[in-house]
Parts: sequence; C-alpha cells; structure tokens
Amino acid sequence: MRKMTPDEVEFLRLLVGPLYCFTGDDISEDYCHDELAQIKAHPDCVLEPGSTSEIAQIMQYAYQKEIPVTVRGSGTGLCGGSVAVSGGILLSTARLNKVLEIDEGNLVARVQPGVILLNFQEIVEKMGLLYAPDPGEKSATIGGNVMTNAGGMRAIKYGVTRDHILGMEVVLADGEIINLGGKIGKNSSGYSLLDLFIGSEGTLGIVTEITVKLLPLPKKTATLLVPFPSLNQTIKAVPEILKGRIVPNAVEFMEKEIIEAAEKYLGKPFPDKSAPAYLLLRFDGNSKDELEKVYDIAARICLDLGALDVYVADTLDRQQLIWDARGAFLEALKAMSEMDEVDIVVPRTKISCLVNFTQELRHKYQVRIVSFGHAGDGNVHIYILRDNLSAERWQQILPEIMQKLYVKGHELSGQVSGEHGIGFAKKEYLWQSLGQTQMRLQQAIKEVFDPKGLLNPGKVVS
Amino acid sequence: MRKMTPDEVEFLRLLVGPLYCFTGDDISEDYCHDELAQIKAHPDCVLEPGSTSEIAQIMQYAYQKEIPVTVRGSGTGLCGGSVAVSGGILLSTARLNKVLEIDEGNLVARVQPGVILLNFQEIVEKMGLLYAPDPGEKSATIGGNVMTNAGGMRAIKYGVTRDHILGMEVVLADGEIINLGGKIGKNSSGYSLLDLFIGSEGTLGIVTEITVKLLPLPKKTATLLVPFPSLNQTIKAVPEILKGRIVPNAVEFMEKEIIEAAEKYLGKPFPDKSAPAYLLLRFDGNSKDELEKVYDIAARICLDLGALDVYVADTLDRQQLIWDARGAFLEALKAMSEMDEVDIVVPRTKISCLVNFTQELRHKYQVRIVSFGHAGDGNVHIYILRDNLSAERWQQILPEIMQKLYVKGHELSGQVSGEHGIGFAKKEYLWQSLGQTQMRLQQAIKEVFDPKGLLNPGKVVS
Repeated sequence: MRKMTPDEVEFLRLLVGPLYCFTGDDISEDYCHDELAQIKAHPDCVLEPGSTSEIAQIMQYAYQKEIPVTVRGSGTGLCGGSVAVSGGILLSTARLNKVLEIDEGNLVARVQPGVILLNFQEIVEKMGLLYAPDPGEKSATIGGNVMTNAGGMRAIKYGVTRDHILGMEVVLADGEIINLGGKIGKNSSGYSLLDLFIGSEGTLGIVTEITVKLLPLPKKTATLLVPFPSLNQTIKAVPEILKGRIVPNAVEFMEKEIIEAAEKYLGKPFPDKSAPAYLLLRFDGNSKDELEKVYDIAARICLDLGALDVYVADTLDRQQLIWDARGAFLEALKAMSEMDEVDIVVPRTKISCLVNFTQELRHKYQVRIVSFGHAGDGNVHIYILRDNLSAERWQQILPEIMQKLYVKGHELSGQVSGEHGIGFAKKEYLWQSLGQTQMRLQQAIKEVFDPKGLLNPGKVVS
Repeated sequence: MRKMTPDEVEFLRLLVGPLYCFTGDDISEDYCHDELAQIKAHPDCVLEPGSTSEIAQIMQYAYQKEIPVTVRGSGTGLCGGSVAVSGGILLSTARLNKVLEIDEGNLVARVQPGVILLNFQEIVEKMGLLYAPDPGEKSATIGGNVMTNAGGMRAIKYGVTRDHILGMEVVLADGEIINLGGKIGKNSSGYSLLDLFIGSEGTLGIVTEITVKLLPLPKKTATLLVPFPSLNQTIKAVPEILKGRIVPNAVEFMEKEIIEAAEKYLGKPFPDKSAPAYLLLRFDGNSKDELEKVYDIAARICLDLGALDVYVADTLDRQQLIWDARGAFLEALKAMSEMDEVDIVVPRTKISCLVNFTQELRHKYQVRIVSFGHAGDGNVHIYILRDNLSAERWQQILPEIMQKLYVKGHELSGQVSGEHGIGFAKKEYLWQSLGQTQMRLQQAIKEVFDPKGLLNPGKVVS
C-alpha cells in the first residue's frame, strides 16, 4: 500500500479541477469514516468528479498507476464500506446529484448516483409517483442504496432496492463505460450483470447512472401502533398478521426503551409508552374504505393475540409523529453511547428466537443490547451499547457477542446482512456464513471485474 | 465432441436406476428438441434423477469424465436452450416435481425445479395465495421459468420471476451442493450468486430446489377488452393508461388476425372481432368497488384515445374465454405454419415503433409477421411465418428479417430477449447487442462456474 505521488495527485487535480480535489489536511474528517466511525482511514486524495467521463478518465489513470479507488456517497453506511482503508483515491459522488429524467410514459426515472434519497422521494411524490424503496436513512444517496441493496421499511410490500433497478451505466476498473438493462420491464439477455453490481458495495465497478422503476403513489396511508404486554408477543404476532392475507407496507417492532431514547433525542412525546413493546404497522391504498377494511383485519388479529390496544393514526400529522420517532432510533442510540451493530436477516417466523437470544446475551454479559427493525422482513437491527464499560471489557466482550449473534443467525437459516452490507466490518462473518466454496466463487467474480484489486480494496470478499 | 462410452452410460444407469436412463432409440423424440423444433440434437443418454444427491453424483462423474450435461424441464423453450447440442447427458427434471413446503408464516414455498407452473399456481391459489409470475406457457416447469427469468402476463404489476425467487439449492459443475438466499425478505451478504443463476439457462449450475415468494391472492379480477380502429392507436394507448396512475396486472395487445387463428384453433368464438386490433387489460383487487374505480379510469382513457368500445368481463367464465384465447396464440400459430420468433423488449413507449417496423418488413418481404404480447412491459413476441414460402426463399429472408428486427430493437434502447432467453438461437444477436466488453465479462463468469465448459455447452455466451 504505497502513498500516491505528488505527480499523480496533480494529474487528477487538473482532471477534475482544483476545486474538486483535496489532499492532506484539506480532506474533511467526515471523509475518513462512515456513520459508525469505528473504521477510520485517511485517503491520499478526495476527488469530486462532475461527470461519467471524468470518472472514466480517473479510472483509466488509476488502473494504469495501480491506485486504489473507494467510492463514497453520503457516507451513511455502518460497516466501513465507504472508508478508504487502503488509501488512494476517495471518489465522492456528491456532485453527481441530478435527477436526469422522469419518464411518465415508461414509469421510470434516470438519476445520478449522488442523488439524495429523501430529495428524490419528494420530487416523484409531488408528481403522484412513488419510488418504493424506503431505507430509514433518508440522507443516503441512491447510489449507496443500490450498492448495498438497501431494503428499508416498505420492503415487505414492495421488495428491496434491487427490485426497483432497471438499468445502470457503470465505469469498469479500466475506465471503460458499459450500459446494463434499460427502461425495460423484462430482461433475459445473458447473465444479469446488473444484479451483480447491485449490492456489490463499489468493489466491481463505479455506477454513474441508475434507471429506477416508479409506481403510482397510493392516495392514502394509515398507521397502527399496537402495544403488547411483552416483546415476545409483539414479534410472534407478525407471521399471524401475514397469514391474514393482508399486506402492510411496513411492519416494525420496538421496545419501550428505544422509544424513550427517541423521545429524549427528538424532544417530542411519543403517543404511547405505557407498554413494554409495540408493533407498528402501516398500510397504503387508494381509498379510506379500502384501507379501513384491511387494518380492521390486522387490528382484530393483534387483539386476539393479546395486544393491549390498537391506536389508529390516519392523519398525516399523527403518522409523522410516530414515524419520525422510528426514524430517529439510530441517532438516539448514537447520542447515548458508543456501540456496534448487527443487521442479521432471518425467516420472519424466527425473529422471536433471535430477539430472545439477544435478551439472553444481555443478561449474560450485563451489557445493553437493543433491537428494533423490520419485523415483516425478518431483518433485525441489533445494537450493542458500550455505555460505561471499560475499553478493555468492551474490546473483550464485543467480538464474543457478535460471534454468538452471527452463529445464532446462521442456525436460524439467516444471512449476515439484510441491508447494511458487508463492507469492512463483516467480512469474517460472511466467510463463516457462506463457506469456502461460495467465497471462492465470489472472489473469482471480483477477479473478473477487478483483476488488479483496485476497486474498494479490502471490502466484502477480500 | 466425443460420444459417451458404454461404460459411462452403464455407470449412470446404475446410479439413477435402469428405469430412469435412456439411450439410443429409447430416447423419446421429444427430448431432441424444444417447442420451436428447429434446433435438434440427440443426447447420448437421458437421465431422470430423483434427488439432489443423485444429481450431485451425476455431476461429479460428468466432471471427472468431461461429459456435457444439458438440463431440461418441460422443453417448452423457444431458443433451443434445453437441446443437447453437444450430445452427452440430457438431465430431465421430470421426477423432481414435488412442492416441498408451503410456509404460510413466512409466505414462501419451497419447490423442486420440475414442478409444473400451472399445478403450483392451482395449489397455492386454493390456499388463498398467489405465486405472481405468470408466463403464458403454463406447462413449463418452475425450474425452466427461473432459468430464463420468465416474465409473463402479470410482470407489469408484480415483476418477473427474478423478483419472486428468494433462495435456491444448486449443484455446481463439480457436483458440490450450495445453498443461496433462503426464506428471507432482504439480503445484502456479498454478490448475489442467486441472481446470477436466475436467467443463466443451465449454463452455470443445476438448480435442484427453489424458494419462492407468495402473496395474498387478490379476491377479484376484471378484464377489459378494448377494440381500437388501428393497431397503432391500440399500442399508443398503453403509456397513456399508465400515466393515469393505475396499475393493471396485465396489458396485452393483439390483432384480429391472431384472434381468428386462436378461435379456429380452440373451436370457440371470441367475444368480439369486429375491430382490427385490441387491447386487453386485467385488474385485480380485493373488492368490486375498488376494481370498478380503477377500470373506469382505464376505460375513460381508452375512449378518449379513440377506442371503439370497452367490454368489461368481470365474471370468471367470461374472463376465462378471453384469456384462453390469449393463451392459445402460440399454439394457433404453430398449427398454421412453420415459423420463427423474436422476443425483443423495448421501453413501453417504443412498442409502436417496433410493431410499425414489423409491418414495414411484412410489406417489404411479403411474409406474414404477426406480433402480440406484453404491451405493458414493452415485451413484444414477433412471429415470422413461413406459410407457403419455398425452403430456399425462407432460408434467405428469415435471417435478414431477424437481423433487421434486432437492429431496430437495439436502436429503440431494447434488449434481445424479454423472457424467452438466449439459448442456442439468439447467441449471435446477444453479441451484437451487448458488445465485446460485456460478452467478455459474461464469458469470464461462465468460466468461473464451469471451467471445463460442460454445463449446457454451446448456449448463451459461448
């Protein structure tokens, strides 16, 4: 891992323009870590290119000079995926933030990778359209969402980011530009390179344009907040609701502890916190009647399974209050303590086993472990909080707890990550989960696209 | 391409049992071609294994002895994908026809690859569930659907087969068994090998078990049959309907000519054939009211755009009559003439350009070209009919017409195949469409999974 030479930096500075090339102390500290901040590294230079053509030229040069290139969107990842652990170039997509086209006849949009999710959602919603993927972190870029195959709240009804990506422009390791898919609803034309790039965390190529599917925006939504006497009962209700042949667009679970943390963080009271645990269900549809029929079924099932009450929020304001709190969980926890996270996904019927296991660990290690997440998708976000533990004790128990959680996830037929990706932090667990043969195949695929190992080195499969 | 030796055949006969190994004249003629029958080849032996373990043993042996292996489901393909063009073993999935599990809590099913689509749809529908992928050819196997990423009628609302596959068991070229994905709604754990296998037409591994997503079955459907004064007007209505922010579960277009052919083939009258062209729209939902609101919007848009009338079929019988005719189009054409097909997919707003171009070719070459298909997905099935043309003339003009169609499809930002796949027949067009760089990547991926080139050799990328 050599340092870039001044000549190399100078070449790139001229290429992107002096305003968009940073080195040394001019590199913002933000560019040296992601949202969890445990993995830190200082790139040799940060580039903010303004076009595909510039990225192609950067890659040609980097390929020739064998300089590592790590791509970064908003840096909202949680596994170090966008940290330049091998130095070299950190390529920011900040300036590639244009919505290039919204094509109503084909119900698709073309966007640059640096477009912020929240901005894009707002733009299309004003046109009566829906971009269905809805990851909790709204300041993430769409490029970042594509690179981790982010799932989000609405996956239970609409699927994950992958299901909404139709095409891509990609700059390959050697600077060549390819186009995959397009504004098309079906494709069976060779192996899906498109799907290989989705979820590849910047290790196979650099995505410079994305074609996404749009849907008509449902006219109404309603949210049910359902208190239960125990966490176990809360989670066990989820498969039963889905057996009722209804499809919420979100099914989240949360405990009193995290609600209180979010209240404190936001300085706003949550509608109810008398119960130890809650289920949060949201439905969408085109009329109030249609929605009422569906959530009545859900409410009845919950009450039959021991729910203490069912609060219906059908105005936008009341729903906003609840979802804002849900959206602040991660920030609220971060404000309380140093922590690390696990993003295991298991079959939805197995979530209660996984969450019960976190309680056992909490008891055994005397450490706070808070979990919440997408109960409908079996995707549990588990946060292990350091609180007042000594550095020594923390360093000792954290790996043990992580290891035990991943082993449990595997036992429950789960996978290492539902939506946060592998990045740097979870490589070891991916090996354990997938085994030699699958990892050998993954590494050989990496080799096909990145023979010199320059694209986001040290991540995912390496 | 050497012949298998008698010893090799004998080894495999003992492995699968004498009842399930066929050679020479005992091989049914059906096993030597697919549904279009232009590509014919006699395998050295046909094996009908009964388990994953038997397939793993077959592959171990084939790998060691370097014997080609071509997998065949129902053989309903149209591009020669399941024809053993390099001889060797034809491995039929006919006995792997069990629905292994329907898991209502997780809303998934596990099936063997040889399960027939129609049977599976009927089983889950009786339980109030929907397996959304709905390719026209209902006698295809689910394994075949997965291997071509079949799209079908309902793709416009529910997506293609890929969007409904959550997990797989695969036997690799050397006989090792791997498991991908699972009963999970999200996954971001390394490159998606699952998505690489989907649509790979048996060239990367042998799929031996499939985990699919299920949905609640919508309670009601309604079909609109909409006559238009011209084909052009029919097709141009499609993007306008979708701009109305409504989502049909199927949007098909058809001409009078094909309707008459289907009537003759089925011996049943079609509800209307007074107009030159028709749009067929189907909606699903949970109540009659909900459905009426939506199809009223569609009907109004169609009438505004010059539709001659709108026939609503809301009883199951009336809908069946229409959809049976639609389902018989391919068979009806096959009964009329020798033919070849093109399955280009273009942006939906470009379909009219493509279909108009087929009319020009029809005129220029004085040959019947009939097109119908999934207008909502931009996926047009174009059939070129030989009728009474001499063999010489047919051999001369067919490649010219095909070439011109693919060039046009590419100009319109389309792809070679929407859902039929590449198989043997379309390899050349795939090269033209994707170009050297993408094909080099695809070939390198093939090499990763099949270093000896034994899995369905001569197909897709080779």
